Amino acid sequence: MRDITPETITSAFARYAERAPSARARELLVALAGHLHGFVRDHRVTHGEWQAAVSALTRAAAITDADRNEFILFSDLLGVSSLVDMVNARADATSSSVLRPFHVEAAPPLPDGGDLWRGQAGEPLVVVGQVADNAGRGVAGCVLDLWQTAGNGLYAQQDPAQPAMNYHARLACAADGSFALTTVRPMPYTVPDDGPAGDMLRALGREAWRPAHLHIIARAPGFAPLVTELFPADDPWLDRDAVFGVRADLVLPFERMRDARQLPAHLVARDRLPSAFWVVRPELTLARV
Amino acid sequence: MRDITPETITSAFARYAERAPSARARELLVALAGHLHGFVRDHRVTHGEWQAAVSALTRAAAITDADRNEFILFSDLLGVSSLVDMVNARADATSSSVLRPFHVEAAPPLPDGGDLWRGQAGEPLVVVGQVADNAGRGVAGCVLDLWQTAGNGLYAQQDPAQPAMNYHARLACAADGSFALTTVRPMPYTVPDDGPAGDMLRALGREAWRPAHLHIIARAPGFAPLVTELFPADDPWLDRDAVFGVRADLVLPFERMRDARQLPAHLVARDRLPSAFWVVRPELTLARV
Repeated sequence: MRDITPETITSAFARYAERAPSARARELLVALAGHLHGFVRDHRVTHGEWQAAVSALTRAAAITDADRNEFILFSDLLGVSSLVDMVNARADATSSSVLRPFHVEAAPPLPDGGDLWRGQAGEPLVVVGQVADNAGRGVAGCVLDLWQTAGNGLYAQQDPAQPAMNYHARLACAADGSFALTTVRPMPYTVPDDGPAGDMLRALGREAWRPAHLHIIARAPGFAPLVTELFPADDPWLDRDAVFGVRADLVLPFERMRDARQLPAHLVARDRLPSAFWVVRPELTLARV
Repeated sequence: MRDITPETITSAFARYAERAPSARARELLVALAGHLHGFVRDHRVTHGEWQAAVSALTRAAAITDADRNEFILFSDLLGVSSLVDMVNARADATSSSVLRPFHVEAAPPLPDGGDLWRGQAGEPLVVVGQVADNAGRGVAGCVLDLWQTAGNGLYAQQDPAQPAMNYHARLACAADGSFALTTVRPMPYTVPDDGPAGDMLRALGREAWRPAHLHIIARAPGFAPLVTELFPADDPWLDRDAVFGVRADLVLPFERMRDARQLPAHLVARDRLPSAFWVVRPELTLARV
């Protein structure tokens, strides 16, 4: 086209893409361009603002490496990662929530009733839960990937003082989908805010805090995998999670308990718990594939 | 918010930004997030597609350095750079068009009537033009930055065989805004397509070609600077410029001429022109500040 104007540029983009080999790629790229065009046109983005965006991306490039990806952080902080989770989630299951970068594929096995706490710093937490189908029947053959921060708010990967794989585990549930373990109460923490994504947070008047959470991936034969997080209902950051991960059904009461004898007998650390500890009782629902 | 859903995430983003220090930054970031949310929601972007986008940005990061910026190339190929130009352009002036990465601030001076061609390979081009205000009166004190490819389709910065600053010049127009020079006819060329932005072009079924063009920045006291490009009307890529730079008023006839005696006498290379050469006659309009 020889008459590109603010009003014609999106249709020119679509027409130029008429020979795209994949209809889906064309749909997505034309729609993305159209949204960017609408954004620039409606808000009369200036050259200086465009330059600031290029500068942010270029600075993100400079600090992105095998250990840190500032583009994923931008996606998280813009709510894009969470929204991709939500639009792909099953309505008939527990809500999904963001995977984030600290999941490991080969976490050490933990028996049902096992202990991740091992007397480490922080407040002990007992998790007593069940995985069920959406008729409430326990799911057989369920395996949980579990990972979380230590009591200091750091993942093992962020903290040279922790053993490798600390607070990472793969737990095989009982045949009725029930499971129990002892761990530490996870802590709120900040996402890395020393790069351009942190600059964006500050421009929004926001902070880098996430509420405390326990990551879970639940997998069972015949069911869609569930990637989720559980949040303590008393966390001060629930209403302003930096990465938009909180869903109503993932916020659970963390109860203060004093009598370990009321806990399942197969908890291997039951008799080593202090006089007061936390308990959370998640009920996870998986959707059939 | 504890009830983030695909329908509430944009309002949550806006609410979280209520304490943004700059109203403009809030406006832009909330609008950008809203567009990204609409894109993900309306097209049900999958995790695999999100991963492909992250991968493209990460690969862009790996090849971005002081000499090459893949993010600017993405902006160009998505039409964003051109649209930023257009929404900031003065309606009462010649159309603006993309600056692109080869402009240099300290180009060598060229007198009015001077020669950039100097017998180099390619087809000689005579430019005879004028810069006027929007009442048609010649503009005094006008200085033009001029840059273009050599006859081989490469800028001096891309081609070790060319002298530094080849086909880069700063020309002071005559008092009536008129100017003339000899140069080479610029050639179509491809933007770099060996990175993820090139992958995007291929996914769109597009090619990396730009129509040939002569870059100009016109500056004069009392007028808004004009950043633009001029295109030959017979160029085969006018209707599919990879970076959406073509505007109707920037497409000019390049005439084949044979009689150099009809050209202005102050063209220093006039008597060295071959028997046939090209002529273009731009009339540029500047808007008062």
